[in-house]
Amino acid sequence: MRFTRLLLCLGLAGLLTAPALSAETIDSERASFELETVAEGLKNPWGLAFLPDGSMIVSERAGNLRLVNPKGKLGEPLQGLPNIVVKGQGGLLDVAVDPDYASTGWIFFSYSEPGERGNSTALARARIEGKVLVDVTRIFSQKPKVESNAHFGSRIVFKGDGTLFLTLGDRYSRMDDAQTLDNHHGKVIRINKDGSVPADNPYVNTEGALPEIWSIGHRNMQGAAMHPETGELWSGEHGAQGGDEINIDRAGVNYGWPVVTYGEDYGGGKIGEGFKKEGMETPIYYWLPSLATAGMTFYTGDQFPKWRGDLFVASLRAETLSRLDIEGERVLHEERLLADELGERLRHVVQGPDGYLYLLTDQSDGKIIRLKPAK
Amino acid sequence: MRFTRLLLCLGLAGLLTAPALSAETIDSERASFELETVAEGLKNPWGLAFLPDGSMIVSERAGNLRLVNPKGKLGEPLQGLPNIVVKGQGGLLDVAVDPDYASTGWIFFSYSEPGERGNSTALARARIEGKVLVDVTRIFSQKPKVESNAHFGSRIVFKGDGTLFLTLGDRYSRMDDAQTLDNHHGKVIRINKDGSVPADNPYVNTEGALPEIWSIGHRNMQGAAMHPETGELWSGEHGAQGGDEINIDRAGVNYGWPVVTYGEDYGGGKIGEGFKKEGMETPIYYWLPSLATAGMTFYTGDQFPKWRGDLFVASLRAETLSRLDIEGERVLHEERLLADELGERLRHVVQGPDGYLYLLTDQSDGKIIRLKPAK
Repeated sequence: MRFTRLLLCLGLAGLLTAPALSAETIDSERASFELETVAEGLKNPWGLAFLPDGSMIVSERAGNLRLVNPKGKLGEPLQGLPNIVVKGQGGLLDVAVDPDYASTGWIFFSYSEPGERGNSTALARARIEGKVLVDVTRIFSQKPKVESNAHFGSRIVFKGDGTLFLTLGDRYSRMDDAQTLDNHHGKVIRINKDGSVPADNPYVNTEGALPEIWSIGHRNMQGAAMHPETGELWSGEHGAQGGDEINIDRAGVNYGWPVVTYGEDYGGGKIGEGFKKEGMETPIYYWLPSLATAGMTFYTGDQFPKWRGDLFVASLRAETLSRLDIEGERVLHEERLLADELGERLRHVVQGPDGYLYLLTDQSDGKIIRLKPAK
Repeated sequence: MRFTRLLLCLGLAGLLTAPALSAETIDSERASFELETVAEGLKNPWGLAFLPDGSMIVSERAGNLRLVNPKGKLGEPLQGLPNIVVKGQGGLLDVAVDPDYASTGWIFFSYSEPGERGNSTALARARIEGKVLVDVTRIFSQKPKVESNAHFGSRIVFKGDGTLFLTLGDRYSRMDDAQTLDNHHGKVIRINKDGSVPADNPYVNTEGALPEIWSIGHRNMQGAAMHPETGELWSGEHGAQGGDEINIDRAGVNYGWPVVTYGEDYGGGKIGEGFKKEGMETPIYYWLPSLATAGMTFYTGDQFPKWRGDLFVASLRAETLSRLDIEGERVLHEERLLADELGERLRHVVQGPDGYLYLLTDQSDGKIIRLKPAK
């Protein structure tokens, strides 16, 4: 009893350090690795980013942003977040650290923002002062707000030119909006880090178009990553009843949803007009049935030399980590890691500054798990 | 007893008609289909082609070429084949019907040809007169002959310009030969239908090069098919301990074997220098672990409208039929058909003039099985 209370105190004080998973070696096609639990006790962790000092900042969908030290010790929830609608798929979503953090101190986070006529996916930036967020500024909010608790997106990716991308879901009940330029549903947007619109965005001179729009015809991109060599945005589309996709997201391109999709004919009625249509881009790769893809990242580290250049995609339903062998714009091969070893829904995969891969498990007692080369 | 003898007589007379498989409906991503046994009692059938009257010509590796009528009745072995070495992977291999058969009457077949210093993959053409092959002419034989019973290739594909391709294995013990132009090991060759060399072959003006060579750096292509729209040759490489590949086979290109391969590190020692090298082409797609890929074909028929343009690849070890969804030069998606329903090594897949897909099972009591849309 006293021990329990002690644990509880420690937990509240953020001093709990997670036990390691048994260090079983997992052999895969190109590398042998071990799984190590870095932290646990996170409520549906959604986003993860590293600060220059090696500590992590983690978003919990339930509405907490926490610092986690390199040893896995959870900090208390940071104070000062804006109002967030935690309902259905909504809540606090992605978190990202400004590439210029050393000079700016900015972190960015996306979340479901409440309003009079429903909610929207919004993006804010803030600075961390001790246990408090300061200078909190909402720099973008998806238009229009709708009554929906699904398909928020949303991943934050820095382009490397002072702008950032935010992926935005179709809000489910408004899927047709994904084809028109007068709204932010089913779009990728590109903005400057203060929320202003870059002058070279593709629709800035199109009458009636929202100028933040970068690409259209998306459903619910829960994954996005910058290609380490080409500097292009690759995004992962969480598909409809099958039909998860990987796309290369280019300015002014229409990715077809809900007009064309590979998700038709699987477990339900027909969606869209088929697989292809003039003026709509086909994906680089797709999954059918769906794995329910979520976060993704290109591996560029030194710990797994044979994984360099590969694209890793976390999946929720399949509970796997797909390793995609990429050549130019082609997927040459897919390996599904962790199909047997973990058994947890995976929300995200991120490369650490140490070259390990970090996973977030989507559980009410969610974990940060890392992949390390086997000894 | 009397019944057995009757069956035997009928069998010898080639009158046995195979019973149908139970017409169980198999649901797949894009089509529901049934399997129907067209013929059985074939000894390791390797090649299958259709004659203009709808009958089939089938090669058995044991050294028989048979006509099979549209109802599946096996004809007696045609007389007049050249000497064939039936040993290991060698024997009578592919068979093809001249696209101009109506005027020429030529059929082509590849086989393991004996000689003083070993054997080689050879190509012959002939005409059928009743139950006899006439005008049998060997139009090509791989140089040099070697003592090996493995990696013969060999698929025959008509380019559509009066020339044909023949895929040639590296003969296993001579894999390094695949990188040099002074031999036919691990090559695709292109010749005219009389065996002469087309003037526009890539190495006709290269000193020391064998002029039949089209592409180099191959291992053992047991599958090859003409792309129905681009008119380019796509080939399937049966990989080394993993590393089956699909390549687009272009004039004068080096596909890397045995220098670069995706087959390394799987169940054995290191092969080659890695995955990539300047001047060597990477595949369109690869499998690791290997399925042991064999014959392949692009589907262009009317029976399965949603399979049109897809590439089907038969596999021996995996006992599956892969359906590859192709967009331009990318594989967007793979579906593995028949993983549970058949349980037979598949040597080849061919589209019939009726728009059904025909499979050859690699058994001493091998079958021709067709896929028909479910009723």
